[in-house]
Amino acid sequence: MKAPLYLGVDLGGTNIKAGLVDHKGNIISEAACPTLPERGQKEVISDLVALCFETIAAAGKTKARAAGVGVPGVVNAYNGAVLTAPNLFWKDVALGPLLEELLQCPAALDNDANTAAMAEYAAGAAKGYSDALVVTLGTGVGAGVIVNGRLLRGAHGLAGEIGHMTLYTDGILCNCKNRGCFEMYASARALRSMGMRAVEEEPACMLARAVSGEKELVTAELVARCAQKGDAQSLFIWERYTGDLALGLSNAARVMDPQIIVIGGGVANAGEFLLAPLREKIGRLSIDDTAGPVEIACARFGAQAGIIGAAMLARSLFDG
Amino acid sequence: MKAPLYLGVDLGGTNIKAGLVDHKGNIISEAACPTLPERGQKEVISDLVALCFETIAAAGKTKARAAGVGVPGVVNAYNGAVLTAPNLFWKDVALGPLLEELLQCPAALDNDANTAAMAEYAAGAAKGYSDALVVTLGTGVGAGVIVNGRLLRGAHGLAGEIGHMTLYTDGILCNCKNRGCFEMYASARALRSMGMRAVEEEPACMLARAVSGEKELVTAELVARCAQKGDAQSLFIWERYTGDLALGLSNAARVMDPQIIVIGGGVANAGEFLLAPLREKIGRLSIDDTAGPVEIACARFGAQAGIIGAAMLARSLFDG
Repeated sequence: MKAPLYLGVDLGGTNIKAGLVDHKGNIISEAACPTLPERGQKEVISDLVALCFETIAAAGKTKARAAGVGVPGVVNAYNGAVLTAPNLFWKDVALGPLLEELLQCPAALDNDANTAAMAEYAAGAAKGYSDALVVTLGTGVGAGVIVNGRLLRGAHGLAGEIGHMTLYTDGILCNCKNRGCFEMYASARALRSMGMRAVEEEPACMLARAVSGEKELVTAELVARCAQKGDAQSLFIWERYTGDLALGLSNAARVMDPQIIVIGGGVANAGEFLLAPLREKIGRLSIDDTAGPVEIACARFGAQAGIIGAAMLARSLFDG
Repeated sequence: MKAPLYLGVDLGGTNIKAGLVDHKGNIISEAACPTLPERGQKEVISDLVALCFETIAAAGKTKARAAGVGVPGVVNAYNGAVLTAPNLFWKDVALGPLLEELLQCPAALDNDANTAAMAEYAAGAAKGYSDALVVTLGTGVGAGVIVNGRLLRGAHGLAGEIGHMTLYTDGILCNCKNRGCFEMYASARALRSMGMRAVEEEPACMLARAVSGEKELVTAELVARCAQKGDAQSLFIWERYTGDLALGLSNAARVMDPQIIVIGGGVANAGEFLLAPLREKIGRLSIDDTAGPVEIACARFGAQAGIIGAAMLARSLFDG
């Protein structure tokens, strides 16, 4: 008796990571290589496939039951096409069918926010919840929406693009050309930007001293740590950051009414220091006390969420 | 061969309406009576049941295949309990099981925004769309969310409560005790309030003259009509109103990515005069041109949406 194994591929703009994963989400073997997307899609796909076979061989296998791939862009999950992936310079690439041929197994494709949500839903913090919002705080704010126990893709594969909800009508200009998008306030990048400004404006604060005044060294996690240590500047930023994050999450929750909101990305390493203010602020914005508060939790998987989620996506090909 | 007929009941705070409806959403017979909720739930339910039998008899029948009821409150659609219905003064009423006994047929219960969405999805403007947001602009802003061809209820029956998304953090105080809720800007009541203020402040404007200076006579529809006729004050209000409506709808669309947004309520009688600015403003806020614009349409059903949707909810008990 051998349990089937699934290939999970995290195709990022910087690195490609692949792993062979069991049905419970445990990684059996993994490998990675740089993406170098400027080489063109053929070379990238060729490396991706080589990485998959390397991973399979490392586990002493010859084949996976199915493969899943998470892509940083907009995909058509039904036919396996990557519609646009700006960080890869891809447009209309039929990656799914191509991988099925090259890997000799069924392949499923989705955007990286959805594969992260799959990881948490299938094996992580959202396991056992039928309605979950799984948010990743990174360069932007991405989310995967689970409703009735299934990933919600929406009519154009754009469900969960909550980073571009408008939070402030006259707010900061976003790459999408609109103003005041949620991710301009609630992404890890936004937190870092606020920290960098504090270093410039308050060179005596703990945060500025921690980077010896070099603002480029500021990270979102560092701002969180300094706030946790009581740095007044960082606490001021943290209060604003968690307020805006709560506001956007609460708005998203009004639409889909989740049981749980799971937060991932480096900022979530702050744990209760992040969750406590979010619970309080989201609770204050809730509309119905009888329903009880929505649960808020940190993601279980970090950098491996992409591999595990893509593998769980592959596993879901065999569900019901 | 007789096609089965469904009872649809629209249990409002002011009136109870019941209708016998065929599987295509055509009303065969209907009846109504005042709700008078202050009498208590027993009397209201007794009247509701009498109304149902009256409707069945009027169609020359003795029985319906199933009954659906739309309730102005929070329900548990799974066990047929009304959790809270402030306008009826109800809390924890097991209406569904009671009606099944009294009407001798299966009964389904949902909130009125969801039954309105069912009407449009099963037989109206959202027919044939698997992902739709059906919004009703009334005293508040309610919405029914259709995903993958099914009504989304959410973990606590609160999916689609988009009227309480925060639009402006320091905005107008809402009944829910939060500030700046979407419905304080985008409901029919909000439009009327803006019109009333204009009558006070600009007694010479067309709107003020239309009500002979009596601001209590202002309606949301009147503001729309005066704007359509070119009244500068009303146009100013209309521009702000459609902007805020577009903003909230766009935010909701980011979460669930619908193919179509359907707008109901008296304000939607303005037709293209409402839809054109919404299309333009929502289009401007969209994030992906490749996906094509979300469709925006007016609801097909007006005052009868409650009856038809409740009947379609009853019909859905027999779906797959």
